[in-house]
Amino acid sequence: MSRRTDILEAAVRVVAQRGIRGLRVEELAQEAGVSTALIYYHFRDRAGVVSSTLEFISTRAEQYTEVDADPEADPRGHLEQTLLRELQDTPMIVENSTAWGELRASAIFQPELREQLRAATARWTDYIDELIRTAQQHGSVPPEVDSGEAAERLTAAIEGLSMRWLSGSLELDRARKLLRGNLIAELGSPGEQR
Amino acid sequence: MSRRTDILEAAVRVVAQRGIRGLRVEELAQEAGVSTALIYYHFRDRAGVVSSTLEFISTRAEQYTEVDADPEADPRGHLEQTLLRELQDTPMIVENSTAWGELRASAIFQPELREQLRAATARWTDYIDELIRTAQQHGSVPPEVDSGEAAERLTAAIEGLSMRWLSGSLELDRARKLLRGNLIAELGSPGEQR
Repeated sequence: MSRRTDILEAAVRVVAQRGIRGLRVEELAQEAGVSTALIYYHFRDRAGVVSSTLEFISTRAEQYTEVDADPEADPRGHLEQTLLRELQDTPMIVENSTAWGELRASAIFQPELREQLRAATARWTDYIDELIRTAQQHGSVPPEVDSGEAAERLTAAIEGLSMRWLSGSLELDRARKLLRGNLIAELGSPGEQR
Repeated sequence: MSRRTDILEAAVRVVAQRGIRGLRVEELAQEAGVSTALIYYHFRDRAGVVSSTLEFISTRAEQYTEVDADPEADPRGHLEQTLLRELQDTPMIVENSTAWGELRASAIFQPELREQLRAATARWTDYIDELIRTAQQHGSVPPEVDSGEAAERLTAAIEGLSMRWLSGSLELDRARKLLRGNLIAELGSPGEQR
């Protein structure tokens, strides 16, 4: 792995442990075990670190949500697994979701984060929209479902449930059960369509 | 209004503007125009301020979500208005929702906030559960809806949509449209039941 990736992994850890306000170049250098000069070389300044970290969180989520279900043979199963994977008690997912929630909350106070967060949110929603449309073509989601709206509601539901889970207001099993209910409410019972 | 209320209103403003980390007794005294001694008199210490502020935010939300629709004659309309009022561009609702989101995000890093936040979340969810059950008795929500689960999903959806709106990833009109879709997905079309 490259030094750049090492630094970004350390940056997500810092944001997940200490919040975005804890993400300072000196502390990041210490956490990553590199010099501050190397951080400035790769990211120019603190704003560059923050922006690359957001990008990294969003790309990493696309990777860990890769699932077993074959998107060709079972697009609905693939879609459901992709969304349910966001609610899992693995260190990487907890760290990634914590950092994402922290960026979401920080963007309220820090307008400079907003545009990039909006773009990352749209990319996620568009991806889920596409999975819903594939499931519709396959006949496992009813044609009358508005895939764009359903994708926005499902991803917003994950953010809401995930924040409740991470902040101790909701058990993980319950969060996953509720999300399965969201899927049925939005897309109908999988059984009914087949 | 009492001095205590003045202080709590100032505390919500501070949390909404500067985050929970900005809520220090000295700064709060300045914002509220009172002495630090008066704050210590009413709330004992900073933890007491934080805890009473969370309580105040949650109670104030119950007040501003009071709506026109008669809960007896039109419980489904009353329920929908109650939930949609959380997504409105008025200074008090923006301030309250911002502070609530900040407390939610902070509880991930500050375990001492969790128990009270969990209790406030449960109180909100139970209230919505009760409104759904009333609408079921009235025949405007199908009897097979699990009111407890629907209440948890709807309130989590509001948190998710509200954070997207406040952080600039979603327009308010779109957020309200999506929430109306959540209501139909969870509770069926109002027309179908009547």
